[in-house]
Amino acid sequence: MVVTFGEIMMRLAPPGFQRLLQARSLELTFGGGEANVAVSLAHLGLDTQFVTCLPLNDLGRAARMDLRKYGVGTDFVQWGGDRLGLYFLETGAINRASTVLYDRAGSAMAEVRAGSFDWERIFEGATWFHWTGITPAISEKAASMCLEAVQAAHRLGIPISTDLNFRKNLWKWGKTAGEVMPDLVQYCDLVLANEEDAEKVFGIRPAHQDITSGHLEVAGYEDVCRQLQARFPKASRIAITLRGSLNANHNTWSGVLFDGKQLFQVPTYQLTHIVDRVGGGDSFMAGLIYGLVQGFDNQQALHFATAASSLKHTIHGDFNVVSVAEVETLMKGDGSGRVNR
Amino acid sequence: MVVTFGEIMMRLAPPGFQRLLQARSLELTFGGGEANVAVSLAHLGLDTQFVTCLPLNDLGRAARMDLRKYGVGTDFVQWGGDRLGLYFLETGAINRASTVLYDRAGSAMAEVRAGSFDWERIFEGATWFHWTGITPAISEKAASMCLEAVQAAHRLGIPISTDLNFRKNLWKWGKTAGEVMPDLVQYCDLVLANEEDAEKVFGIRPAHQDITSGHLEVAGYEDVCRQLQARFPKASRIAITLRGSLNANHNTWSGVLFDGKQLFQVPTYQLTHIVDRVGGGDSFMAGLIYGLVQGFDNQQALHFATAASSLKHTIHGDFNVVSVAEVETLMKGDGSGRVNR
Amino acid sequence: MVVTFGEIMMRLAPPGFQRLLQARSLELTFGGGEANVAVSLAHLGLDTQFVTCLPLNDLGRAARMDLRKYGVGTDFVQWGGDRLGLYFLETGAINRASTVLYDRAGSAMAEVRAGSFDWERIFEGATWFHWTGITPAISEKAASMCLEAVQAAHRLGIPISTDLNFRKNLWKWGKTAGEVMPDLVQYCDLVLANEEDAEKVFGIRPAHQDITSGHLEVAGYEDVCRQLQARFPKASRIAITLRGSLNANHNTWSGVLFDGKQLFQVPTYQLTHIVDRVGGGDSFMAGLIYGLVQGFDNQQALHFATAASSLKHTIHGDFNVVSVAEVETLMKGDGSGRVNR
Amino acid sequence: MVVTFGEIMMRLAPPGFQRLLQARSLELTFGGGEANVAVSLAHLGLDTQFVTCLPLNDLGRAARMDLRKYGVGTDFVQWGGDRLGLYFLETGAINRASTVLYDRAGSAMAEVRAGSFDWERIFEGATWFHWTGITPAISEKAASMCLEAVQAAHRLGIPISTDLNFRKNLWKWGKTAGEVMPDLVQYCDLVLANEEDAEKVFGIRPAHQDITSGHLEVAGYEDVCRQLQARFPKASRIAITLRGSLNANHNTWSGVLFDGKQLFQVPTYQLTHIVDRVGGGDSFMAGLIYGLVQGFDNQQALHFATAASSLKHTIHGDFNVVSVAEVETLMKGDGSGRVNR
Amino acid sequence: MVVTFGEIMMRLAPPGFQRLLQARSLELTFGGGEANVAVSLAHLGLDTQFVTCLPLNDLGRAARMDLRKYGVGTDFVQWGGDRLGLYFLETGAINRASTVLYDRAGSAMAEVRAGSFDWERIFEGATWFHWTGITPAISEKAASMCLEAVQAAHRLGIPISTDLNFRKNLWKWGKTAGEVMPDLVQYCDLVLANEEDAEKVFGIRPAHQDITSGHLEVAGYEDVCRQLQARFPKASRIAITLRGSLNANHNTWSGVLFDGKQLFQVPTYQLTHIVDRVGGGDSFMAGLIYGLVQGFDNQQALHFATAASSLKHTIHGDFNVVSVAEVETLMKGDGSGRVNR
Amino acid sequence: MVVTFGEIMMRLAPPGFQRLLQARSLELTFGGGEANVAVSLAHLGLDTQFVTCLPLNDLGRAARMDLRKYGVGTDFVQWGGDRLGLYFLETGAINRASTVLYDRAGSAMAEVRAGSFDWERIFEGATWFHWTGITPAISEKAASMCLEAVQAAHRLGIPISTDLNFRKNLWKWGKTAGEVMPDLVQYCDLVLANEEDAEKVFGIRPAHQDITSGHLEVAGYEDVCRQLQARFPKASRIAITLRGSLNANHNTWSGVLFDGKQLFQVPTYQLTHIVDRVGGGDSFMAGLIYGLVQGFDNQQALHFATAASSLKHTIHGDFNVVSVAEVETLMKGDGSGRVNR
Repeated sequence: MVVTFGEIMMRLAPPGFQRLLQARSLELTFGGGEANVAVSLAHLGLDTQFVTCLPLNDLGRAARMDLRKYGVGTDFVQWGGDRLGLYFLETGAINRASTVLYDRAGSAMAEVRAGSFDWERIFEGATWFHWTGITPAISEKAASMCLEAVQAAHRLGIPISTDLNFRKNLWKWGKTAGEVMPDLVQYCDLVLANEEDAEKVFGIRPAHQDITSGHLEVAGYEDVCRQLQARFPKASRIAITLRGSLNANHNTWSGVLFDGKQLFQVPTYQLTHIVDRVGGGDSFMAGLIYGLVQGFDNQQALHFATAASSLKHTIHGDFNVVSVAEVETLMKGDGSGRVNR
Repeated sequence: MVVTFGEIMMRLAPPGFQRLLQARSLELTFGGGEANVAVSLAHLGLDTQFVTCLPLNDLGRAARMDLRKYGVGTDFVQWGGDRLGLYFLETGAINRASTVLYDRAGSAMAEVRAGSFDWERIFEGATWFHWTGITPAISEKAASMCLEAVQAAHRLGIPISTDLNFRKNLWKWGKTAGEVMPDLVQYCDLVLANEEDAEKVFGIRPAHQDITSGHLEVAGYEDVCRQLQARFPKASRIAITLRGSLNANHNTWSGVLFDGKQLFQVPTYQLTHIVDRVGGGDSFMAGLIYGLVQGFDNQQALHFATAASSLKHTIHGDFNVVSVAEVETLMKGDGSGRVNR
Repeated sequence: MVVTFGEIMMRLAPPGFQRLLQARSLELTFGGGEANVAVSLAHLGLDTQFVTCLPLNDLGRAARMDLRKYGVGTDFVQWGGDRLGLYFLETGAINRASTVLYDRAGSAMAEVRAGSFDWERIFEGATWFHWTGITPAISEKAASMCLEAVQAAHRLGIPISTDLNFRKNLWKWGKTAGEVMPDLVQYCDLVLANEEDAEKVFGIRPAHQDITSGHLEVAGYEDVCRQLQARFPKASRIAITLRGSLNANHNTWSGVLFDGKQLFQVPTYQLTHIVDRVGGGDSFMAGLIYGLVQGFDNQQALHFATAASSLKHTIHGDFNVVSVAEVETLMKGDGSGRVNR
Repeated sequence: MVVTFGEIMMRLAPPGFQRLLQARSLELTFGGGEANVAVSLAHLGLDTQFVTCLPLNDLGRAARMDLRKYGVGTDFVQWGGDRLGLYFLETGAINRASTVLYDRAGSAMAEVRAGSFDWERIFEGATWFHWTGITPAISEKAASMCLEAVQAAHRLGIPISTDLNFRKNLWKWGKTAGEVMPDLVQYCDLVLANEEDAEKVFGIRPAHQDITSGHLEVAGYEDVCRQLQARFPKASRIAITLRGSLNANHNTWSGVLFDGKQLFQVPTYQLTHIVDRVGGGDSFMAGLIYGLVQGFDNQQALHFATAASSLKHTIHGDFNVVSVAEVETLMKGDGSGRVNR
Repeated sequence: MVVTFGEIMMRLAPPGFQRLLQARSLELTFGGGEANVAVSLAHLGLDTQFVTCLPLNDLGRAARMDLRKYGVGTDFVQWGGDRLGLYFLETGAINRASTVLYDRAGSAMAEVRAGSFDWERIFEGATWFHWTGITPAISEKAASMCLEAVQAAHRLGIPISTDLNFRKNLWKWGKTAGEVMPDLVQYCDLVLANEEDAEKVFGIRPAHQDITSGHLEVAGYEDVCRQLQARFPKASRIAITLRGSLNANHNTWSGVLFDGKQLFQVPTYQLTHIVDRVGGGDSFMAGLIYGLVQGFDNQQALHFATAASSLKHTIHGDFNVVSVAEVETLMKGDGSGRVNR
Repeated sequence: MVVTFGEIMMRLAPPGFQRLLQARSLELTFGGGEANVAVSLAHLGLDTQFVTCLPLNDLGRAARMDLRKYGVGTDFVQWGGDRLGLYFLETGAINRASTVLYDRAGSAMAEVRAGSFDWERIFEGATWFHWTGITPAISEKAASMCLEAVQAAHRLGIPISTDLNFRKNLWKWGKTAGEVMPDLVQYCDLVLANEEDAEKVFGIRPAHQDITSGHLEVAGYEDVCRQLQARFPKASRIAITLRGSLNANHNTWSGVLFDGKQLFQVPTYQLTHIVDRVGGGDSFMAGLIYGLVQGFDNQQALHFATAASSLKHTIHGDFNVVSVAEVETLMKGDGSGRVNR
């Protein structure tokens, strides 16, 4: 059983490419870095539990219903707090960027009460624990709870993964990511960063990369992995997602995985007509966890993660609603998009 | 020029009679007790200004755009704070009640900074000032600002109206409506209550009324008016809206106006197929202000207010998008709904 | 084969009860008094042809496609003119009336060229001809063409029906309905009026009727029928639809048919939750023609017409999409609305 | 744990009051007599399992996801068969009836393989078993499986409930309801019928009732209960839902419960503006089971069932998405539909 | 008059790029290989008749209405059978393939009764007959009827065209395409295949082609044509559509036509932002038939077919709603997509 | 204050890539060459007034509300005339062109009465005046009024800009653009043309350009600028927008500005996934006016105009709803479309 800890938000997005200033209706789905991983894992077939706080109102109930719909266990959801975190998403096009407007201050998860989770009980039967850098960002309480969780998992010998997930607009409670994250990351076995996170959180940067240019030198990221591992020796695996943003509709997508010795690579996908890129990194993380839990070797796991997350860009919403069979078809090389009938 | 002070919120409602737990999209409009009055007055043709705080993000900008669309002046809108107040509305049917789920804690208006409004300048040229009991309910800061505004208007000799607008889920900042409202209401020239407010705020109740029965004894409300006026002698006019809730689709609707001597009454409307009853009281208030500003006598003004607000129940959204001509047609007795062509 | 002559317009209506001032999308259907009769007849199973002018652009083409979809013959549609007539419909509720905003000036049909229809050929095989008072209202050219058509049908011995269909906003080309209609109506065998038309066009009124009161004295209309027949002796049958408008959602509905001797009546339908009343009279006319063409006696034909048009009020759009079987079920007395499964 | 056995279908319905002949999109939800009971029970908070066969394609998967969303256990869902049962629903208005067009022939559930369910294991921990007369109607195989289930539950001493749910368009596999149902009903402890079922299935009818008249004599149904109990002595409780169809929008709604001695009654609800009446009887059944499982006395249980199912008529879709608190509010007499805020 | 024989299905597709697992509504259109050809021909202006079986319910009626809307003759539609064939379409993006989920087993067309069509009468006045490989795939009865039709057309000297249209998920009634198709194809004058069909049905394959690579060697298909013609000597013309699938949004598109001597070719279209590719091959077939019926030479006809079907990829739905003028504009080389105004 | 004179129309467009022939609903927005400039300027923060005639009905009122929403002043709107101009827009894809179907004959603006505008008063405080070649095209009256306006602005020394905006389907009132425009353009200080206008209006063409080829030689346009300036010596600045239409979804976009001495250029944008290109030129014009009014130098102003209008292609509707900050981000080179969060 994979346990994921974090926040699930209501996502409110104008239809199509409408701007918020134009919208007369909003599409309502749910998402958030950690919830996205939990849903992806459940949809791929793994037993999962999502640990969070939800307000006892219809927004909180709706969030739980959506998790259950995708097969995510909600046995350890705590009810309490005043509001559900929200985010507004405006989908960009060409050279107009997508925009995420967070409205999550004061959420149930940000106001989580100390001691409200019984981690010993939660981790009974757990085989993996996942959290991300968003949770400690939202409030001091959430950061404390995150540390509790990570330490409990470490104590119980459960493999721990994290996604650095740096969000500059969230770290507002008094400490910086650079001050808080090291205490948490030190317990992790698998660390995922995107092409910006390592620099923004730890000041670790690859040489000669321009992330807005659309061209990324894959090999150059080996250095980032080595630096991260040097700083967090428990992290036996470091992964980096590599997104080249040609424009809002056309990205390149790949990833690397470093096991302390070797940098595993996969070919780069051309994502030429993106449907929804939010949750792309989360679907990579889920693919990687899935692969490792299933016993794939590093190359296979990376291949699976990259293919799964490549497909995510064709799916509307935060959640990666693709099956293992679909990922495997793409891994075998059929990305032709021919009609199945 | 009529100046209105208060909060405008984004209203998010599932389409039709869907429940929040079922919704996959939300209709986005704007509303709130005070904004509804301002829009109604502007749409009826009066010069208006809406004074409020809005966050400097696209939600705040969209709220201002919607005010401007309906012709409301936004010259004195302050930009600041972290978030726009939201409310979620689920529309009921038959014996299932509509539900308002407020998500307005920490809004720009709740966090309004002392001294941020220059009331002397705002009230230049003002001929009326309107506020409601919602604003002092949302936070201590907002209550203080409300007092500032009311005192300034009083000092400048501007007629003041208020709607008691009691909301039990809002008064959470430490004081009760009963503690705060008297200081504010004492300056008012016109006080509006619905069939519950006077009791909930001041403990003043009519004899022998069951507001859920669908049958209201109009005459019995004269006593409420007298009690209110006894307590707030500056209030030369007291008005009460009278809603009989047969069920969520079928209400009766009427109102009374008391001028210290006489209780003016109007026939009761049968609202048999309600489209949207939110903002009904606000549209009555706007109708009453419109009538009084236009120099109607008390009976005419009450008639106009009741007809205008009766029509509001046929309009989707918080705002009463009806014209003076439409109100006058109904006042003349044509409520047959025959097609105009 | 029933030949109908007139205009088909694009109907643009905000969804639900939205006002035009609020609309961000419009529902696109087609309609118009004469087209509604043609579609209704075709859907009931009669062979029909609709004679009209349409502009040779995609709006005109779309209008023709919609006619064909419902089985109406379009063999005699003329292509020409500059624009398709449009109308905007705002659906009212309770005491807010529905509003039709015509935008049909300069339409292909209003600019119909003299001699553009070969009536001899059109009427080959025709067993009935129908036109309405809308066509002569829209332009002098259309009025002339209408006269041509009526005279040709008369000459060829084809039974002719008309619906007076008075529209005060249309008669703007120089003559009044009272000046133009007598020349046309004199050739008709069946004349339909609603509770207002006879007065508005010919100054013929029933005694003691208030059409906005919701209560109509059926018997009082016998006098109107007699007066009409006295004026137009060829009209062996006069029918009147009787709508009592309690409010925009709740009407009563009935009709009478006079054959020169007897006034046939039917019970009144309570239309308590109207979906769309536009086209109600047209569906009555179609029901009556259907009944007479099928050889029903007067009582049966009136019964069929009233039942069919009662059902129309439950159908969205101008067109009465109901089957003969459905009309017959209602005629047999089952208006309970129980689920068929 | 309550176990329900039956079929879940995809429900495809044109929006609003559109006819199928007009539809350009269909609203997709899920439903079916037994699934409705399971969802209702889960939403009220009981532990439930839904036992069914689903095809291993995305329609079957979507059906399972919807059950999970509402908290229904799907541990015993069998994958197999070729297609998911569908039904098309056209919502009527006034005197136009709603229409259910079944497209469920050859569904996975109709083709259920003998022995595919391990009833001993399914009923471990079960405290109630529910099935309905729809399942034996769809195919001989389903009828056999139904008998297997009922006999197993009986053998294991689990209380059994059934809803006769007669559907004339379904009994097409060779035997009639009257031939098949007695063998199944004989094992049941609680039998629910609507005002037609007992007659259509067993020829048992109340005296002097006209179900299309909108007026039902409640007391007259005691006789039906006694006749049913005489025939099926194990059925210690007989319940009848009483629907008076004034028209498609306005029904009356009540129910009676007979315990062999006494006929319990409740006041009749006026359902004046129905949102969706499909699933009304199922929500009554669920309310009754809920009440009995919770230990309510007969009068309370009937009261709960009637209130819960009254609310169902305000909810879009087959499923009764209402909470225990909402039902209790209505039971306490507040059906005024006043806004909660 | 062109006669087409086959099935028309209801097509149900989630909006945009939604997955079936996410859908809450489905867009309802109609389609199917043979219906698509008939509609395309009618829309291009040819007189057509579509011969099929439809169930006598509202789904069948709606299908016929849609055919009529596009001008297709339905004089020979047979009413009967139990259900309308359906298909669910999920639109893919980038490397996620579109998926067609057929739900057509037991359709009216699959259950067609022997002798139910009077081919002599149907073919009176016919100048062309078209059928496709889908019809014999759906059932033995349909295959038999197909043979009847082809033999009748052959006997009457009517030119016959077919599209091999291999669908692996349909051939389930006992025989393979390879066993059934030769008897049918032997009577055909024009045979169309796509880049896969000839291999899948007859085992005829081009040398060195990878259809998922996005690069097709046009010239290599001459060999396929020659092999087909060798096997079916009556087929004086063989056409092949050539689709290169770079991904689900970006295809290349071309075609070849072989007349026994020469392979006619046209330049390849870059379809960079596909709206809907379903029905692409059918629109090619219709373009080819149109050209040949109009007397175009082979090169012109191929050019017309390829241009028409290129445009199809920009049209939502199965049907190619483009005009002859639009096809000709593209044939003249203007594919710039500049706004016409 | 920037004064713009022209027409605002209702724009009615099928959703997505639907054709008019397929549409069942139309998206309602507002637009038109001059209104687009006014809205763009107001949204960028400039004080603006839009001078026009609107009919006194709900379509006219809705148009004014939309202008106000975007902050455009409507102090000088004249009410009168019979109808609001409409246009229907069908959005093309790949090699199917978008189509604008004008339905604006007889609009309030086309029927503008002489002397209805008090230009002296309108231009009080004006710092810029803008009109376009569409206004004189729609009617002789509008052309006369345009001349009045231009002469008044010239007399008062207000800088004047124009966009040639040639529309071949509009010039139908008797004179050609070539006859009318010179009198108007002679007063202008800034003239904008697209790659076709100069030729269509004045017969001035660049050497060796194929505007449908997708490749434009920027430098070649210097000659067009020189010729225009030679003919209209008051025009100290000539600008040309350069659109290369690879297909309907993928354009290149750039512009040049000539100041009599130097041709300023900017790099070409690749607009690979266009959302809506209508209003592209207008947003360029607005950007240029904004830059010049703000005191940017020619190079900066051109850069701003090109970046702003490049972003327009990502915005749904005629109006360029982008902020100065967004334009500046793109000017700084970040067109990567990375998510802002």
